[in-house]
Amino acid sequence: MADPRFFTRQGPFTLAELAQHTGSILSRPDAADMRVSDVAPLDRAAVENIAFLDNPKYVETFRNSRAGACFVRERYADMAPPGIVLLYTEDPYRCYALTAQKFYPLHDPSEGIAATAIIDKTAKIGKGCRIEHGVVIGPKVEIGDRCSIGANTVLQEGVSIGSDSRIGALCSLSHCYIGQRVIIHRGVHIGQDGFGFAMNREGHVKVPQLGRVMVEDDVEIGAGTCIDRGTGPDTVIGTGSKIDNLVQIGHNVQVGRGAVIVAQTGIAGSTRIGDGAVLGGQVGISGHVKIGAGVKLAAKSGVMGDIPPGAAYGGSPAVPVKDWHRQTIALAKLARLRRSNEE
Amino acid sequence: MADPRFFTRQGPFTLAELAQHTGSILSRPDAADMRVSDVAPLDRAAVENIAFLDNPKYVETFRNSRAGACFVRERYADMAPPGIVLLYTEDPYRCYALTAQKFYPLHDPSEGIAATAIIDKTAKIGKGCRIEHGVVIGPKVEIGDRCSIGANTVLQEGVSIGSDSRIGALCSLSHCYIGQRVIIHRGVHIGQDGFGFAMNREGHVKVPQLGRVMVEDDVEIGAGTCIDRGTGPDTVIGTGSKIDNLVQIGHNVQVGRGAVIVAQTGIAGSTRIGDGAVLGGQVGISGHVKIGAGVKLAAKSGVMGDIPPGAAYGGSPAVPVKDWHRQTIALAKLARLRRSNEE
Amino acid sequence: MADPRFFTRQGPFTLAELAQHTGSILSRPDAADMRVSDVAPLDRAAVENIAFLDNPKYVETFRNSRAGACFVRERYADMAPPGIVLLYTEDPYRCYALTAQKFYPLHDPSEGIAATAIIDKTAKIGKGCRIEHGVVIGPKVEIGDRCSIGANTVLQEGVSIGSDSRIGALCSLSHCYIGQRVIIHRGVHIGQDGFGFAMNREGHVKVPQLGRVMVEDDVEIGAGTCIDRGTGPDTVIGTGSKIDNLVQIGHNVQVGRGAVIVAQTGIAGSTRIGDGAVLGGQVGISGHVKIGAGVKLAAKSGVMGDIPPGAAYGGSPAVPVKDWHRQTIALAKLARLRRSNEE
Repeated sequence: MADPRFFTRQGPFTLAELAQHTGSILSRPDAADMRVSDVAPLDRAAVENIAFLDNPKYVETFRNSRAGACFVRERYADMAPPGIVLLYTEDPYRCYALTAQKFYPLHDPSEGIAATAIIDKTAKIGKGCRIEHGVVIGPKVEIGDRCSIGANTVLQEGVSIGSDSRIGALCSLSHCYIGQRVIIHRGVHIGQDGFGFAMNREGHVKVPQLGRVMVEDDVEIGAGTCIDRGTGPDTVIGTGSKIDNLVQIGHNVQVGRGAVIVAQTGIAGSTRIGDGAVLGGQVGISGHVKIGAGVKLAAKSGVMGDIPPGAAYGGSPAVPVKDWHRQTIALAKLARLRRSNEE
Repeated sequence: MADPRFFTRQGPFTLAELAQHTGSILSRPDAADMRVSDVAPLDRAAVENIAFLDNPKYVETFRNSRAGACFVRERYADMAPPGIVLLYTEDPYRCYALTAQKFYPLHDPSEGIAATAIIDKTAKIGKGCRIEHGVVIGPKVEIGDRCSIGANTVLQEGVSIGSDSRIGALCSLSHCYIGQRVIIHRGVHIGQDGFGFAMNREGHVKVPQLGRVMVEDDVEIGAGTCIDRGTGPDTVIGTGSKIDNLVQIGHNVQVGRGAVIVAQTGIAGSTRIGDGAVLGGQVGISGHVKIGAGVKLAAKSGVMGDIPPGAAYGGSPAVPVKDWHRQTIALAKLARLRRSNEE
Repeated sequence: MADPRFFTRQGPFTLAELAQHTGSILSRPDAADMRVSDVAPLDRAAVENIAFLDNPKYVETFRNSRAGACFVRERYADMAPPGIVLLYTEDPYRCYALTAQKFYPLHDPSEGIAATAIIDKTAKIGKGCRIEHGVVIGPKVEIGDRCSIGANTVLQEGVSIGSDSRIGALCSLSHCYIGQRVIIHRGVHIGQDGFGFAMNREGHVKVPQLGRVMVEDDVEIGAGTCIDRGTGPDTVIGTGSKIDNLVQIGHNVQVGRGAVIVAQTGIAGSTRIGDGAVLGGQVGISGHVKIGAGVKLAAKSGVMGDIPPGAAYGGSPAVPVKDWHRQTIALAKLARLRRSNEE
């Protein structure tokens, strides 16, 4: 079980409750009232735990598991250990995630405004919010209901945050609208000036950045990530997109819905990322480029041109993944040839 | 126009004022008293706005623009829409930038020291400064006139900041001298120990880092960027250089004047970057390397040796840009050859 | 000497004290009582300074140095300038580091708890700690003796920190155990949720991250670095490992003992880094990969598979360094061939 020093567990829950919560189907309706007290991986689960089998690689572990219950695709029912109660689903990992959220709720339930928080008189704070110590909230800031704002975070003038959103410690937000159910981890900086200069031998003149950052509902943004505001148009992070740690997003970038952007990736100004695109870690994308919906970019890809929807690219400069692998192999052969010539 | 929730507009201004402010020349002296109330892009400008044409790609947009006035090179005068007043200049983008700064001043004019700021008795704060909530200012810190220090920022013992400089929220500065008119965005860390160890199987011994960071006048440093102090010599960022977000600058690095360093680039210890060099995003440069004045490095370049002044390099390991393109094409051909053999 | 604005020098010390402190041997026992007042590089040292010769490249500088004393390997004794006192050692740089630490102690000796620090009643703070302004310490936090916690840092519920550790300004720590003599620089974020989602067209479901971060003794972690907590297993940074600035470490990563990880490197989830491995800057390593003990990875390496102990790899995708160099040369030749064909 999770370290009680850091995690507070809810429950136990009956299998009927969990089946309903996850939309899965109990293999034995007579087990509806059976209670489980925690989630656990297949190999460490005991009879009071519920586990899951998603990756077929772990079928043997499933066979030998002592878990009391398990989320599993129905076609693996024959391989179940004796006595286990199965919960059938086509998406066991999703069911596990929802169940783990039930045992270990993501929201800290406590509310209240710390005495040391500095809140401008013109700011509006919703009901049931948690505002931690040292938070600084500027004029005309608006925060919805049930939000939490982590210690020493700074919300500058006019920032708007939708209900049920959570901002971590030590963030700074300005010039932005944040949607509902958004999670912003610690040390995130949103809304600063983009990197815009009229360059010139006599000195680079700063171009005022007159746009905003629009973070839509259900977005998650990782620790240390920076999102610059637009130059006049806005920078937009679409609904349900997930951004990892230490990512850089330049001015006017538009990220579609449900995109996934892994750590340390950088996206230069005015580039568009399509819905559901998945960008690996340390990817770099030039400015003014269009990445189609559903595109997958391998980690460390360097992208300088448009990529059509649904394509998988890799390498730097990035090419279709198959070509990238061919290039890698061709280059290795060429080098081996060189080695044999040396010998 | 910019969202009034976040931006306070000045003006209106007469065209005579703007021509003088930008050093441009009015096409029709009789329009000197005409007033414009905002900047706007060519395609969205109305008669009360001033726009600019810099990139010839937008000549058609210029032809059809409804802007009241426009910064433009004189040779495009024939293509102007009827009624528009032109302001001639060889650098329209620069004029736009200066005009936008006039409508939307970069400095927050308000001053004052927040009640919750902690300022050591031995610190000296200039006139007209703005010190926000939660700022911590250590002993013997010196801050010039008209500076602003963002909320919850930490200035450690002895830090010196020149006049008219702005430090964002949540920065930490130590062991550094900051020049005049410097802009440091949020979450910047300057002056921490460089990564210096006497490495050894029995343990890596920390080498005290006894130098400083010297940030010269008119430098801008992006959010989340880290600049380590020198080992004994100093780390130096030269006058007018512009550094983007999440950049890493190692100990003893010397950046010349007017250099441009795009996001997520890393420069290892003791490397020198020449005046006016432009480093793309996610560039990595080894330690003890000399990058000449005016060098241009493509994004994601990996540099392990010196580069002569004025050269353009790309790739990893970086080579002259022309060679890089040739390598890219040659490798693509080789892989295609391989594919046809497969078929 | 170091700028007295930022550094407070101790001493002077006798050569006998320094020989004992560093485990080196005085060439002339009669010089045991000679005092030196500072460290200095060979070329700038005066008679009251102690220098070191490590890299043979600087033998000529050694010959002409005016230093009063010098750490050196005994085999260079013949090349010493007249009058200098030598301290023999096989590791002069290590001796220099230890001596510099003696003149310029790494720990700020002052202790005390700032009036503005917010410390939960259930937290336990050891003896001789320094807690700076604006620090927020949550319930059940435990801090050992002689620790320092930088201004505006946030320690969330249950965090445990061993004795003699130093946490910089503006850090946030949660869900973690920090060992003894650990140094965490500014702006570090430890213990946030890893990037874990059950991905799905209808929306990515957040997977609760139920593990911790274990930072063992004598680790150093650079500014702006992010370390996510484990998913159930823990994320572990082994004893004596040194991590540079802006590094990303994903959930469940296990870093061995004495590893060195240079700036802007990213390690994806569940990867293991062996003891003593050295990772250059901007390296990227995929998830679920094993990097053997003593492996060396060149800067910007992109690693997608296991690497055996002791190997040196480079490139992306990474290959043995010799192969990488062969590939680089082969590709350059191929491109040159192409150029001659063009001409």
